[in-house]
Amino acid sequence: MPRFFIDTEPLGDTYTITGADAVHIGRSLRMRIGDELTLCRRGTEYLCRIEGFTTDTVTVEIMSAQPSANEPSLGLTVYQALPKSDKAEFIIQKCTELGASELVFFESKRCVAHLTDPDKKLIRYERIALEAAKQSGRGLVPQVRYIPDMAGAVRELVTHETPLLCYEKDGARLSDVAVTSDTAVMIGSEGGFDPEEADLAAQMGAKPIWLGNRILRCETAPVAVTAILMHIFGDI
Amino acid sequence: MPRFFIDTEPLGDTYTITGADAVHIGRSLRMRIGDELTLCRRGTEYLCRIEGFTTDTVTVEIMSAQPSANEPSLGLTVYQALPKSDKAEFIIQKCTELGASELVFFESKRCVAHLTDPDKKLIRYERIALEAAKQSGRGLVPQVRYIPDMAGAVRELVTHETPLLCYEKDGARLSDVAVTSDTAVMIGSEGGFDPEEADLAAQMGAKPIWLGNRILRCETAPVAVTAILMHIFGDI
Repeated sequence: MPRFFIDTEPLGDTYTITGADAVHIGRSLRMRIGDELTLCRRGTEYLCRIEGFTTDTVTVEIMSAQPSANEPSLGLTVYQALPKSDKAEFIIQKCTELGASELVFFESKRCVAHLTDPDKKLIRYERIALEAAKQSGRGLVPQVRYIPDMAGAVRELVTHETPLLCYEKDGARLSDVAVTSDTAVMIGSEGGFDPEEADLAAQMGAKPIWLGNRILRCETAPVAVTAILMHIFGDI
Repeated sequence: MPRFFIDTEPLGDTYTITGADAVHIGRSLRMRIGDELTLCRRGTEYLCRIEGFTTDTVTVEIMSAQPSANEPSLGLTVYQALPKSDKAEFIIQKCTELGASELVFFESKRCVAHLTDPDKKLIRYERIALEAAKQSGRGLVPQVRYIPDMAGAVRELVTHETPLLCYEKDGARLSDVAVTSDTAVMIGSEGGFDPEEADLAAQMGAKPIWLGNRILRCETAPVAVTAILMHIFGDI
């Protein structure tokens, strides 16, 4: 069933869809009065039936509302040092499918890429998260954010109950980590982390983890770690 | 240290590198006599020192040989229904980094893509596996093969000790699977498997597994499953 994310909470028995989604429902999907669709907002799913169209709106009757069955019980924030080219988009897409709650990009010493216009880029990143959330049947769209510096990202990381730092030199195995429902993981860019940065993050409370002998590309690591953490927590 | 995969077993104390690797060592990497490099063949690593150059060869002294420390203990073959566009290449790259032993593409009912010239495509696929094996520090290059029909692929799948079939409709959780060192997993293309195909595979001995409520893209599933199986087996 087609799935649309909405920003405002539906009040009452009907809801009016506007903007691009309304156009998409009428023109691309060619849906008709009586057809059913799902509206999602922050983990709640509303089963709806189309009641009527105008040129640029679709009005639906809300038949029922329930918490999304597709949201994982693991809350996982991925802190990712900004990678080159379109790898950030790849990471957003794959981690959204796999159930990440939030993606935060930041810049570390070895980052080659830089966001010159973060606000503009975040609009694109948010659209990718939205599309991946729709496609995979998520109940919410992961938030995508940007923190310019690694120190700021680490300060946030360690506020999570289980703050992990992927580090190629050393660390615990994922099987030895007590994963909690409030977990966050920080991953380096192409060059990994500078040892000083990694030490500082560990001193601030991040727990280094080691992903084994094979060197994972910076865009493979977040996907693999998200999949494994979701598995450990019983979500995959 | 630069890493090169060789086809023939080094006999004696020296080995002569030819072809593109020899050119790469001398011209791109600008290595010199006395520099060290690693030769890999089928999970064995040879630590070598450069002894001499000709225009198109590099002769190395073999200083030691040992089993690669980077190869996982899990033997994992991924049977993947052929996806569209360059997704096969993505799957080869990521599953190689994560430790898969072999990748086999096949065509199922819902495949939109077809290999018109499999031999030519396999040459490209093998090069991608080789590059990913070098980059990630593997001790062997996963073999990439093609089986035209799903029935043939299933017949092979079920010869493995643990033959798994990812099926979105039903199946065991990965945590309930007794993963052995000879595991294989079969994954559908964009449209998933036709129920008849999945039933037949299960009748032939494949164990259906279910990856949770969120719908993973056909190129995300093999990467996630490879990561999780490597984790379950203690390799990540």
